Amino acid sequence: MKGNVVVGQSGGPTAVINSSVAGVYAAAKKLGVNKVYGMVHGIEGFLEDKICDLDEYLADEAGIELLKRTPSAFLGSCRFKMPKIEGHEDVYEKVFEIMEKHDIECLFYCGGNDSMDTVKMLSDYAAAHNKSQRFVGVPKTIDNDLPITDHCPGYGSAAKYIATSMKEIIRDNASFGAQKPIVCIVEIMGRNAGWLTAAAALSRGSDCEGPDAIYLPEKVFDMDAFMEKVKELAAKKSSVVIAVSEGVHIADGRYVCELGREVAVDAFGHKQMSGTAVMLAQKVAEETGLKTRAIEFSTLQRAATHLASLTDINEAFQVGHDAVVAANEGKTGMMITLDRNGDDPYQCGTSAYDIHAIANVERKVPDEWITADGTNLTDDYVKYARPLIMGELLPLYVNGTPRHLVRK
Amino acid sequence: MKGNVVVGQSGGPTAVINSSVAGVYAAAKKLGVNKVYGMVHGIEGFLEDKICDLDEYLADEAGIELLKRTPSAFLGSCRFKMPKIEGHEDVYEKVFEIMEKHDIECLFYCGGNDSMDTVKMLSDYAAAHNKSQRFVGVPKTIDNDLPITDHCPGYGSAAKYIATSMKEIIRDNASFGAQKPIVCIVEIMGRNAGWLTAAAALSRGSDCEGPDAIYLPEKVFDMDAFMEKVKELAAKKSSVVIAVSEGVHIADGRYVCELGREVAVDAFGHKQMSGTAVMLAQKVAEETGLKTRAIEFSTLQRAATHLASLTDINEAFQVGHDAVVAANEGKTGMMITLDRNGDDPYQCGTSAYDIHAIANVERKVPDEWITADGTNLTDDYVKYARPLIMGELLPLYVNGTPRHLVRK
Repeated sequence: MKGNVVVGQSGGPTAVINSSVAGVYAAAKKLGVNKVYGMVHGIEGFLEDKICDLDEYLADEAGIELLKRTPSAFLGSCRFKMPKIEGHEDVYEKVFEIMEKHDIECLFYCGGNDSMDTVKMLSDYAAAHNKSQRFVGVPKTIDNDLPITDHCPGYGSAAKYIATSMKEIIRDNASFGAQKPIVCIVEIMGRNAGWLTAAAALSRGSDCEGPDAIYLPEKVFDMDAFMEKVKELAAKKSSVVIAVSEGVHIADGRYVCELGREVAVDAFGHKQMSGTAVMLAQKVAEETGLKTRAIEFSTLQRAATHLASLTDINEAFQVGHDAVVAANEGKTGMMITLDRNGDDPYQCGTSAYDIHAIANVERKVPDEWITADGTNLTDDYVKYARPLIMGELLPLYVNGTPRHLVRK
Repeated sequence: MKGNVVVGQSGGPTAVINSSVAGVYAAAKKLGVNKVYGMVHGIEGFLEDKICDLDEYLADEAGIELLKRTPSAFLGSCRFKMPKIEGHEDVYEKVFEIMEKHDIECLFYCGGNDSMDTVKMLSDYAAAHNKSQRFVGVPKTIDNDLPITDHCPGYGSAAKYIATSMKEIIRDNASFGAQKPIVCIVEIMGRNAGWLTAAAALSRGSDCEGPDAIYLPEKVFDMDAFMEKVKELAAKKSSVVIAVSEGVHIADGRYVCELGREVAVDAFGHKQMSGTAVMLAQKVAEETGLKTRAIEFSTLQRAATHLASLTDINEAFQVGHDAVVAANEGKTGMMITLDRNGDDPYQCGTSAYDIHAIANVERKVPDEWITADGTNLTDDYVKYARPLIMGELLPLYVNGTPRHLVRK
């Protein structure tokens, strides 16, 4: 590769999205690339020519190690959707103009569904206009909902956070067992796909029974059946812990958090999804008189890098690295996928896959991994997900908290 | 000591309350005590003769190491208040009867204010009725609100969790800086004392500016001043993060979470305190049109043993250990306190202190550690709290999550 490269981060951050930037940087430098630029706030910032030179942070290998331990998007993220090409050629030309200005030959973009659409649009435009620049997508999403790839970098660490926190909550909730039952409802992210909520099942083991029920958005939520289940559990257990996806909805399509109250709408007109656990806990308290608790894992499930999965960190690094290798081989309009080659021991390789088959497609939890009664996950799911949460990377603790790498 | 001993856990669990049980066990065994019993669900379970033999779990030192890494109350907790002696002599006689049945010479009780009252009542009863059994309190509370002792075991780990999570949230919230400001309100435990919320200030460092404002229950909450502060911050920053105690209240005494909505009351008639962050976030969104987020740290702040402070674990062990030493010297009606002997390097010893000066007394954050405008903590607070969050104890990871020790 003769020119320079640029890497950007887009969409909701994950605990390991920075490892992918580290992977891009390491591979490019190995190939002798002169400048590895970072887009400041994704393609939105890039369109305003906001970039940084990653040598400034990563030339010393200790910088790479710190970056791997830093949550959120080190470069800054954005939620910018490229407009359709027709009638907006100026936006596309602007991207290429800035790339040419900095002699950028390849653009790497870390993100989920929407971000892969950006890669698709840019590579389509390049193909249609006979431009030589290349575009490769680097998968990233805690939601684990990208197709083709076995799983998505970011998911393993979120799943490890969820499984670990769930174990801690289950122990905590059980401490008052001598009194009457306490019902704890834990709300987990995932509007359409239940992958994150499913990870609550990974808390199961010889020292933990796991949540008593898990409700995914893949199944219609039946309020009566839920209340029956809670009553049944509370009749035989002093501690009941239930995991629910923020995206659970009833038969008519309304989200559970919308029932019985007016749902706040933010300044952008989006429904504020949170409040499912609070709503269900209140309903249980009212109908049963039991003591209840509502817990929301909130943004910590994507930001808790102190508890990241080493497997996830390494794979996030790998997809960033292999995106550069693919681009160096002349590939464009591709996303790097993770391909599982074995389970025992777990092995995973990568390949480059046509972005058109990936952008804007959403993968849900397969029906056969949800138990027949719809309230738990099968062992096949656990077999799939367990390797993704394995291993730890020790944070660098300074003054009692993990040290992060921060852009100047 | 010729007889056996028993140890119990009471009140809300902490990340390190089990280390105190380990400390009691280790000290008693060193002294040649035959049986170290655990109360199953505190004094409430003990009154029903529910005990376990700790040899079953801790005779192998690996058991002690696992117990230190286990959140919540290993023995089970309770919220049982001893009745006043007059007219309830039968309850007291029952305690002594069970102690005699198992040849128990000393009783150790790990807990906060209410639990220290149990130690006081039992030792008072023993003194009044010429009984030889001895009672020593082992301090435990994430709230850090016990008097006399420099700080309380449990606080350091909760503070480490809060400081670490706050850093991760601040990074996450900053990722979308290119768009209009996002205001994130984080709700932290502590109904009357602001120690836990103050710990948000420990996120400050060369890689993190810390929360933009911190509101403690020690200061009256002024809604207009709060809204002004938010607007002022949002005018100059793209990411605003604010920590609030669940116990903040306005001038007439009403809690902020009670304003503008009906507060749910649980089956016991207690106000459900949570909802402060949600309420404030909604108010900010309505009045400013800014995007907001509400995060509640929930029970994870007391249960996240995977992120416990090593200093805290060691001190929790120490107070359990030294309670046995004190009882062996014939002391009773005492609580073990932590006495700071130095700051650089930090050093802390213990002593036994009259329980009557401690039970039912609540210590708040001193006024001089709160900044003049009431929205942050001074460096003196940081100097006090920093040593308490230092050090880590690696969890034993099994299948990707921390392994816990669980009672059969």
